[in-house]
Amino acid sequence: MSTKKFLLAEKDIPVAWYNIVADMQTKPAPILNPATKEPLREEELYPLFAKALAHQEMNQTDAWIDIPDEVRDLYKIWRPTPLVRAYGLEKALDTPAHIYFKNESVSPVGSHKLNSAIAQAYFCKEEGVTNITTETGAGQWGAALSYAAKAFGLELAVYMVKISYHQKPYRRSIMQTFGAQVIASPSMSTKAGRKTLTDHPNYQGSLGTAISEAVELAMQTPNCKYTLGSVLNHVMLHQTVIGLEAEKQMEMAGEYPDVIIGCFGGGSNFSGIAFPFLRHKILGGKDIRVVAAEPASCPKLTRGQYQYDFGDEAGYTPLIPMFTLGHSFAPAHIHAGGLRYHGAGAIVSQLRKDGLVEAVDIHQLDTFEAATLFAQTEGIIPAPESSHAIAATIAEANKAKAEGKQRTILFNLSGHGLIDMAAYDQYLAGDLGNYELTDEELSGNLAGLEKIL
Amino acid sequence: MSTKKFLLAEKDIPVAWYNIVADMQTKPAPILNPATKEPLREEELYPLFAKALAHQEMNQTDAWIDIPDEVRDLYKIWRPTPLVRAYGLEKALDTPAHIYFKNESVSPVGSHKLNSAIAQAYFCKEEGVTNITTETGAGQWGAALSYAAKAFGLELAVYMVKISYHQKPYRRSIMQTFGAQVIASPSMSTKAGRKTLTDHPNYQGSLGTAISEAVELAMQTPNCKYTLGSVLNHVMLHQTVIGLEAEKQMEMAGEYPDVIIGCFGGGSNFSGIAFPFLRHKILGGKDIRVVAAEPASCPKLTRGQYQYDFGDEAGYTPLIPMFTLGHSFAPAHIHAGGLRYHGAGAIVSQLRKDGLVEAVDIHQLDTFEAATLFAQTEGIIPAPESSHAIAATIAEANKAKAEGKQRTILFNLSGHGLIDMAAYDQYLAGDLGNYELTDEELSGNLAGLEKIL
Repeated sequence: MSTKKFLLAEKDIPVAWYNIVADMQTKPAPILNPATKEPLREEELYPLFAKALAHQEMNQTDAWIDIPDEVRDLYKIWRPTPLVRAYGLEKALDTPAHIYFKNESVSPVGSHKLNSAIAQAYFCKEEGVTNITTETGAGQWGAALSYAAKAFGLELAVYMVKISYHQKPYRRSIMQTFGAQVIASPSMSTKAGRKTLTDHPNYQGSLGTAISEAVELAMQTPNCKYTLGSVLNHVMLHQTVIGLEAEKQMEMAGEYPDVIIGCFGGGSNFSGIAFPFLRHKILGGKDIRVVAAEPASCPKLTRGQYQYDFGDEAGYTPLIPMFTLGHSFAPAHIHAGGLRYHGAGAIVSQLRKDGLVEAVDIHQLDTFEAATLFAQTEGIIPAPESSHAIAATIAEANKAKAEGKQRTILFNLSGHGLIDMAAYDQYLAGDLGNYELTDEELSGNLAGLEKIL
Repeated sequence: MSTKKFLLAEKDIPVAWYNIVADMQTKPAPILNPATKEPLREEELYPLFAKALAHQEMNQTDAWIDIPDEVRDLYKIWRPTPLVRAYGLEKALDTPAHIYFKNESVSPVGSHKLNSAIAQAYFCKEEGVTNITTETGAGQWGAALSYAAKAFGLELAVYMVKISYHQKPYRRSIMQTFGAQVIASPSMSTKAGRKTLTDHPNYQGSLGTAISEAVELAMQTPNCKYTLGSVLNHVMLHQTVIGLEAEKQMEMAGEYPDVIIGCFGGGSNFSGIAFPFLRHKILGGKDIRVVAAEPASCPKLTRGQYQYDFGDEAGYTPLIPMFTLGHSFAPAHIHAGGLRYHGAGAIVSQLRKDGLVEAVDIHQLDTFEAATLFAQTEGIIPAPESSHAIAATIAEANKAKAEGKQRTILFNLSGHGLIDMAAYDQYLAGDLGNYELTDEELSGNLAGLEKIL
């Protein structure tokens, strides 16, 4: 076997994040103040977000944003991450395709989420914030932010989606070990949570509801900001370190990807791997396909509507232009908790509209079948979220085989599944099912949306 | 901050393992046939172990054993592992000591155990073995061997110590996801297990008992060999890749360790980090201290007796010259399941006898306190086993501070604790206790041993 991993040195950790908006010919539609329906001004975000993050969120002109030294220093804990040639998987599939993956699972909290967690905690600390709040689905983001908050001496409260709080107790323990306070959402601690629990007494939670609770707590706490692990432009920005490193590493491998694949929840790992490569497609020259892999039970990019919608269930956030399933959508209880979100971020939604991003939806059982094959051939047990990207990769590799064509596929392994083993247990026992969103559910959820776009 | 991680390239993965026995002035006493009390011949090990492994076990002459290409290729999945400067921990301790750790937790199964698992599975496959058996305590070894067995197409049965089977269900699921069969030990499937369960109906198991069961199954199955994750010379041999890489990396850091620390169960990770450095002490020149950190509840090196003893509870194995607490010793149910073993391997026992290895014993609560500080400062939640090394490192760093002396400490982070979060939960809830072996228990266990040494 020739080289398997393509490794960079610490000095190769990017010194700037890539802001794709600056290069987009059609900018994403502006986010709106829900009261006035007018484009939101940067200052209107200050109560919720650290100013530097609000500025990044609205920045449409600077393609490169410097990464502060303090952030790069903490990135050194695990970055650069390896780019891996998946020889084992290729052999098992007997495919002419060359399969590479960027291994973000080597982060100490097990996923890519730390890339933005460290940045957000840093910028909050820099402007004197003492407390932060957030939500988490499967707990990957919450775990990452818990360490980042501790590293910068911030107090953190995490609203964790109730179904994950019970399905993935180890992630809760990880957050607590790092010193964070974790509350199952919906909770009785916020107006939004109480309303949800009154309307739906046994509701197991969703990211939309947890966001409402975290936002409400931040607004009511002095010197406290809210942070989010996906969806927003500044989160995508921070995650571009993934693709920027991968670009250099693909060069080391002497190949260029034909297809780039990431799983898709709100868009953070997908954007992270894809945007730096898409840059060359937008600016001209590279003919690549970029594929978002989402759950069949939560298919906003494949079956959602492009529409202004709230980022949360209670309607506390600004209106975001997004492919959405409706902010009141309650996704099925699949194990890929990080993908159980109703909408796609504004940038990816625009790219999808412009034909620069494709999407596929995948059934839960197919993702676990793909995950098990990947584990047995590459040694790494993937997170249920990342397994969507693996299933999509296997489909592409099989297509390459059927067509008898060599093709270079790059996917992002956003995280490992060592804390999701209860899900694998259920899969091995034959106790897992598939969930598909019905047309009736979909139209019901979308019916309530005000048509602005 | 300057460089945090010292990284090697794939080509720097060692091409040979280091066999310290060849360089030892006093060789370990021979292992004995328990029936004849005569030194065992290599051929007598063939029924139990692959021939190549039996040969490595008895090899006292070759200091370097080539690593087969197939093994090195699989090492490339995660090796070389980083050497990390623990700036965060140093700062929190306000110590003049420089603290480095070798991060073996980046292995896809979360620990160093894969270093020997891949080698053992390879040598079994090479001689046409189809089935293998093993035991596992906390499940680190079992998880590693499960992947290695799958990689070489071997069927694997794992006897997992019952207390861990229940405390750490995710590790069981990992083994099953890789395709292994996992049985809680003591079980009714072997004579040894049945006897234990008859004598002690609610016995929660020990490594000693699980080894008996795995050995018995291997002996009764055609074309089946037994494999072990620690204690034996060939396991120590395979683990030396850790220290061989660390040597080069310390050179990159421009320092040489004054103290090297590893946690100690049977000796595999400890020997792995220590032997390549001890080589320079034995051959002359380097004045280093090497410290084994063991649980106060299972202190064979600090309080055990140097004695011939069985490696397992039922007395199936050859007699091994070891510091032992007695092979019938039932250790307290500490969470560091990988350290719950009654004896130290023959090589380390000899080195301890010759004053080349020191030992300290540490209470469970101190290990979790150290682990939590390490997690919060370095971002990595350590395995309960590895936390013993961290606690010993902190003690050394505090001593350096008290003495006002710079000192360079290197410890082995043998694994992460992401699958041990139930233990952290108990610690955070104040539900964990300390366990110390009493003199009465100790002398009771040792009383039954036949005095040969």
